[in-house]
Amino acid sequence: MKRRNILATLGLGVAGLMLAGCGAEEKAATTTAAVQKAEQQTYQWKLVTTWPKNFPGLGEAPERFAKDVERMSQGRLKIKVYGGGELVPPLEVFDAVSQGTAEAGHGAGYYWKGKVPAAQFFSTVPFGLNAQEFNGWLHYGGGIELWREIYEPFGLVPFAGGNTGVQMGGWFNREINSVEDLKGLKMRIPGLGGEVLQRAGGTPVNLPGGEIFTALQTGTIDATEWVGPYNDLAFGLHKIAKFYYYPGWHEPGTALELIINKKALESLPADLQAIVEVAARAANQDLLDEYTARNNAALMELVTQHGVQLKKFPDDVLNQLQVISEQVVAEVAEKDPASQKVYDSFKAFRDQVVQYHEISEKAYINAR
Amino acid sequence: MKRRNILATLGLGVAGLMLAGCGAEEKAATTTAAVQKAEQQTYQWKLVTTWPKNFPGLGEAPERFAKDVERMSQGRLKIKVYGGGELVPPLEVFDAVSQGTAEAGHGAGYYWKGKVPAAQFFSTVPFGLNAQEFNGWLHYGGGIELWREIYEPFGLVPFAGGNTGVQMGGWFNREINSVEDLKGLKMRIPGLGGEVLQRAGGTPVNLPGGEIFTALQTGTIDATEWVGPYNDLAFGLHKIAKFYYYPGWHEPGTALELIINKKALESLPADLQAIVEVAARAANQDLLDEYTARNNAALMELVTQHGVQLKKFPDDVLNQLQVISEQVVAEVAEKDPASQKVYDSFKAFRDQVVQYHEISEKAYINAR
Repeated sequence: MKRRNILATLGLGVAGLMLAGCGAEEKAATTTAAVQKAEQQTYQWKLVTTWPKNFPGLGEAPERFAKDVERMSQGRLKIKVYGGGELVPPLEVFDAVSQGTAEAGHGAGYYWKGKVPAAQFFSTVPFGLNAQEFNGWLHYGGGIELWREIYEPFGLVPFAGGNTGVQMGGWFNREINSVEDLKGLKMRIPGLGGEVLQRAGGTPVNLPGGEIFTALQTGTIDATEWVGPYNDLAFGLHKIAKFYYYPGWHEPGTALELIINKKALESLPADLQAIVEVAARAANQDLLDEYTARNNAALMELVTQHGVQLKKFPDDVLNQLQVISEQVVAEVAEKDPASQKVYDSFKAFRDQVVQYHEISEKAYINAR
Repeated sequence: MKRRNILATLGLGVAGLMLAGCGAEEKAATTTAAVQKAEQQTYQWKLVTTWPKNFPGLGEAPERFAKDVERMSQGRLKIKVYGGGELVPPLEVFDAVSQGTAEAGHGAGYYWKGKVPAAQFFSTVPFGLNAQEFNGWLHYGGGIELWREIYEPFGLVPFAGGNTGVQMGGWFNREINSVEDLKGLKMRIPGLGGEVLQRAGGTPVNLPGGEIFTALQTGTIDATEWVGPYNDLAFGLHKIAKFYYYPGWHEPGTALELIINKKALESLPADLQAIVEVAARAANQDLLDEYTARNNAALMELVTQHGVQLKKFPDDVLNQLQVISEQVVAEVAEKDPASQKVYDSFKAFRDQVVQYHEISEKAYINAR
């Protein structure tokens, strides 16, 4: 086989092959080959998470993302997913990815509120946007540009990494008949919802999921919220609390985040960067689809097999919590210019979308 | 430069390069090269649509899909998008992709109800699932498997290709105060919604979007529904109809479809197949995000600048239409075994998800 044929078989630039003379041919081939080599370079990434390894829904989303990236890239970008605590503790995911200990992470923005208060707006806001509305704000309302601006100083690029939909209000061992009943309550409730509980007289606690059961069992906390029936059943929270309240006013559509170390992302060729971006978008929808499909069966199991008492927060409690929420969220924004900027964008979008959804999503769901 | 160096630069199998002797080296290189050639083969696809070229939202979704595929594949799969009528008439998209005239198409299942009645369930069902619920059914409730089974005899593989969210009820030149007012009404309304209108005494007409304005203007139809404010404004429907009704009981979350010719899809290497699949999933979410963000501004423009009268269908009309819908949809299913199979799956999912959304999405949106 002649050298020219080998090169032709390799599908290299035709122009180079048309050149007469061995030296010129080799030079053209080398240039094309150098480009091709860069394209064929493989990358191995670590992805750390705040969830227990393979935890239903939450923990599966990063696995699905990693799998899609590997399939689409023919293994040129391989991502190994670590459960919370395997490589770094759950609540150190943000720092680990920022410092480059891992190239990617999966968690929720409100876990980092002590470090980046504005990050809370990119997980969920009490009485704020539901999943559909949040994704609208993020991708067509300026949200993601602000999120990237906020995370830029930490060397991180955030993507939406799934959404839980409207969550449940949480697990309690005493009935909540008035806002008074929240006074003195030590409750696991992260983010802005926690700030609202505090204003209402309770004590919010920020714990990773894997520590909730023990904390509630030992009395370190009196109550907890987690996600919804599908996830709450997996943790067995019904074994240690009697009342299951709805709706999740504090988390009406919690967005998870996929964070990528900026240098690691930028070191990828353009096609792999596109693969990461599109795989994240698909994973974002996929998780919501899964929750939407699986929550009811889990709820039925909790109620019919485990005797859980399902309760709605009284309207009066919800109304008062909404008033407190509006104040608290506005005040959190006032304390921090970055939060104020995000809040202004969030609020303008919310006012618009809530108005339209009065005659569309809400009007329909009430007519059905 | 020696041949060995060229091959090394090309990043070919190291084992082959270690072999002594020119013949063996070339043989190893040729085998690896053949694999690499298959991977590097490029594909050019045509994607035909039922929408006017680049129509806001609907027509942009396939463009976005094509762009993502090209970016992720480094141009190995290039997809050229054709507006309705450019290559084939809008309502012949299904046949064109089935026959391989084009490799891909973008439309909505209910346009093919004459040929495939069951396809209607994969666009939207009156008083059925909203966007979030439909995506849950499709991806985690067995929906997509049934859809693929239904389209298999036509040599097509369907993917969800975007969702409009709850649509508007449509444009009318007379008020709808009772179901009586629907009698004799010639209305552009596709799919199962059209069947319901027929049972209520009206005459449904199936027209592609691009023909609606003229049909309404010339009196070929008395009323029309299209999508929602963002799309309806673009067609200028406010210029020829006075009343804009809500909610869109007949299309509570219309799914668009991306159909791929099965042979064309299967002829792609595995990584390009994965790229098509994941890009479709991302495009599916992206369109809903866009509608969610843009409908309200368009609605405000219609109401404040164009004097459109926004009206809610009376509760009594909605209640009666829901009763008729339940009957009609069940009867459509009974006439066709494929439709019955899809309907059974759809109905079981709907009953579950509606129950859960009573305490989550609906309870929240009403508390807010």
